Amino acid sequence: MYSKNLTMLSDFYEFTMMQGYFLNNMHKRVAVFDLFFRKNPLDNGFSIAAGLEQAIEYINNLNFSEDDLHYLRKKGIFKEEFLDYLRNFKFTGDIYAIPEGTVVFPHEPLMRITAPIIEAQLLESALLNIINHQSLIATKAVRVVNAAMGDSVLEFGLRRAQGPDAAIYGTRAAMIGGCASTSNVEAARMFDLPLSGTMAHSWVMSFDDELSAFREYAKLYTDSFILLIDTYNTLESGMPNAIKVFSELKEAGVSPKVYGVRLDSGDLGYLSKRVRVMLDEAGFHDAIISASSDLDEYLIANLKSEGAKITHWGVGTKLITSMDCPAFGGVYKLAAEINDDNFVSCKIKISENPDKITNPGIKTVFRLYDKQTGKVKADLISLHDEVIDPEKDLTIFDPINTWLRMTLKGNQFFVKDLLVPIFLNGKCVYKSPSVMEIAAFSKQDQATLWDENRRLFNPNILPVDLSEKLFNLKRDMIFEFEIR
Amino acid sequence: MYSKNLTMLSDFYEFTMMQGYFLNNMHKRVAVFDLFFRKNPLDNGFSIAAGLEQAIEYINNLNFSEDDLHYLRKKGIFKEEFLDYLRNFKFTGDIYAIPEGTVVFPHEPLMRITAPIIEAQLLESALLNIINHQSLIATKAVRVVNAAMGDSVLEFGLRRAQGPDAAIYGTRAAMIGGCASTSNVEAARMFDLPLSGTMAHSWVMSFDDELSAFREYAKLYTDSFILLIDTYNTLESGMPNAIKVFSELKEAGVSPKVYGVRLDSGDLGYLSKRVRVMLDEAGFHDAIISASSDLDEYLIANLKSEGAKITHWGVGTKLITSMDCPAFGGVYKLAAEINDDNFVSCKIKISENPDKITNPGIKTVFRLYDKQTGKVKADLISLHDEVIDPEKDLTIFDPINTWLRMTLKGNQFFVKDLLVPIFLNGKCVYKSPSVMEIAAFSKQDQATLWDENRRLFNPNILPVDLSEKLFNLKRDMIFEFEIR
Repeated sequence: MYSKNLTMLSDFYEFTMMQGYFLNNMHKRVAVFDLFFRKNPLDNGFSIAAGLEQAIEYINNLNFSEDDLHYLRKKGIFKEEFLDYLRNFKFTGDIYAIPEGTVVFPHEPLMRITAPIIEAQLLESALLNIINHQSLIATKAVRVVNAAMGDSVLEFGLRRAQGPDAAIYGTRAAMIGGCASTSNVEAARMFDLPLSGTMAHSWVMSFDDELSAFREYAKLYTDSFILLIDTYNTLESGMPNAIKVFSELKEAGVSPKVYGVRLDSGDLGYLSKRVRVMLDEAGFHDAIISASSDLDEYLIANLKSEGAKITHWGVGTKLITSMDCPAFGGVYKLAAEINDDNFVSCKIKISENPDKITNPGIKTVFRLYDKQTGKVKADLISLHDEVIDPEKDLTIFDPINTWLRMTLKGNQFFVKDLLVPIFLNGKCVYKSPSVMEIAAFSKQDQATLWDENRRLFNPNILPVDLSEKLFNLKRDMIFEFEIR
Repeated sequence: MYSKNLTMLSDFYEFTMMQGYFLNNMHKRVAVFDLFFRKNPLDNGFSIAAGLEQAIEYINNLNFSEDDLHYLRKKGIFKEEFLDYLRNFKFTGDIYAIPEGTVVFPHEPLMRITAPIIEAQLLESALLNIINHQSLIATKAVRVVNAAMGDSVLEFGLRRAQGPDAAIYGTRAAMIGGCASTSNVEAARMFDLPLSGTMAHSWVMSFDDELSAFREYAKLYTDSFILLIDTYNTLESGMPNAIKVFSELKEAGVSPKVYGVRLDSGDLGYLSKRVRVMLDEAGFHDAIISASSDLDEYLIANLKSEGAKITHWGVGTKLITSMDCPAFGGVYKLAAEINDDNFVSCKIKISENPDKITNPGIKTVFRLYDKQTGKVKADLISLHDEVIDPEKDLTIFDPINTWLRMTLKGNQFFVKDLLVPIFLNGKCVYKSPSVMEIAAFSKQDQATLWDENRRLFNPNILPVDLSEKLFNLKRDMIFEFEIR
């Protein structure tokens, strides 16, 4: 868990608005906010929800200390009655969310927060920070793992992550996305993850010669060791020395569980093929070849297609930062207010850009599966109290190009409501699975996609439609405005 | 400060190597490691060193708890004598570093760590994580701030940063890079930074009408308020309502210190010009126009050049993630070992790629300034015990294209040694300035560059040469290897 309390990790305007609600006596009005995103990162065909466990922890630990209040007081714009309110602040609302590891699509509420507006407003910045970060890295990891086609992807990004949390929670997300292990000791300890590591050039350089460096390391970690062979000359020095050490162990009757070499520079395709031949010729067919060096899904896919003999891919910088798209565009938007008589007043944010118009009302997401294959046919964003009868035909349509229609035949599909209760009346009612359990679930969930949705480039995009009721509500609300 | 102890934030191989040094009784050998980078991020002409304060804090707090040792013990590969060593672990070495905010260039040691190899090895991953992150964001911020040509740049990135630390320490770095304020309350509190903020669409939407939302906000924060005018229709609704509220205040005899409007969507160039005219026509010449919406240095430069009337730029995602280059490639390489008789054994890492060959030996960086203008002429990476006599002519040359030579005339230049002592014998001897002091120093230091070094695109690159002594040492060491 975060050891720092994140209560003050919020944008300043949340506090000025909160006081505004408070002093206008609007603060108890119940608001419904959706946390959603508008575009899959990395041109991927889908995204992976992640970060919920830390979001829960953040909310459970919300608590203003006297130091916090003192800091706010010094700003000179907050009244004591508001600071008194903060002193006793506690989240009292309901939160529904899509569980971590789930495949998600743009415009679907990943979280739906129903709470007094003053509470819901405070959560905005930190929830977005947490969910945006982990969903991004989990999605990137899925791409890298898919490119490796069953090979192991090892998370090596600590030194290039954007600060300690980015390394720790980025590793968590990378494991949710399917990485096999991490080099990050703190993350592995916190989340009970498989650890892995090899050696650095400094190890090799601190011995008088490469052979001694290899020999001492293998002697110490006989069960499992990977020798870094590129310090001086991969094929002329690293490989002969590695084979010498493997042979010495073999002669001594020692058989390691895992052993092999790591390439960290030079042309990985060429070198891995040469190294494989040298290992095989020396009889070390089970020695593994791992590689690292600015890897990402594109380079791994290329190397695989040209027949590189690498089976363990150490991926650092480009995974832990999601290099080619380092932000997940999650937003947090007001969707409704509920008054004392339980009357729901739907809210909409208008824009010239159709993609930026929000979906009004209290919503949920139904996922529609083909009964025969178990694969996803479409998602349907609906009002939360709608019911879908899977025994009847269901016609759905694209909310922009409404002539794009599809009818799911009754009894040939089944439905899952993706949003599950997380907080009810301020009390957490959800227990997060372990990271490795989430990873296993995510793998299953990704298997409900079609191959064409999982393609690295230009994937097929599954339909995410609005229910007819939600579509009509939205259309009618938009018509109240002259937009252009 | 970090509230989490980062002692275990290390790559697993650091621990296996540390035990290897320990069990081979090599662990007390004194090693010299350089932390440096090979390429300026973002194709900038220089980089800004940042993160030293957190690096110091990390080292001061190094301490293995029994829980940490228990976790390592369970891995089944660490011997009790090594865990006993860790139990009493303390950094005992020397560290020299280039102060935060300084302009730095590729291959210059930002930090030089001289310590028993077992200690120096542990620091690698966390130091790189900290320095890489903050130096990246500080460098990005300098670009954004330069593009704004004296306008205020407001850091708004919390919700899109890669986790809580990326938001907090990213903000710290952004302020070092010259931002005027941040929206991040926790970061502002921790580092005593100017806070700023406006309002969200949810504020406007939670009132029955926009005018009431504006009026209530302005009434509350009379001294300083910025109205967000794009919720419904910027020019037809937001602006008339904002002007109405400004007029009401004026009639009531209230004069705010800071007031104005914020644009958050639509075409910022066009809208800002129309908004300026409307404000001026209504007599509100001092109302400011701020804008946010996927801004970065390129868009700001474009908007400025087309005459946009924005003077306050809220920059979020693209600054806090350094969107177009989200990693700073700092590395940590063994440069020398010092034996018991104080004999220095220089170390070099060889590569087919000349840029990846390390500079051997114990080094420092001399910055050579033109006496008349105070501007930088060149940097000279030298062995640490070299002395430059500024009264004599000094000829320096490019270490790759050695025919590129330059002679600095005696008495026409002055010299500064960039590396200052941070730790001596394990004791911190350096007091970090405040963030705003670092920012002020950085501004001064950047002023020692020439305009052409600071250009956004295709900047002129200042020479970073090797001293003749270091050049010869490196050449002789390379010749010991057959590289191709």
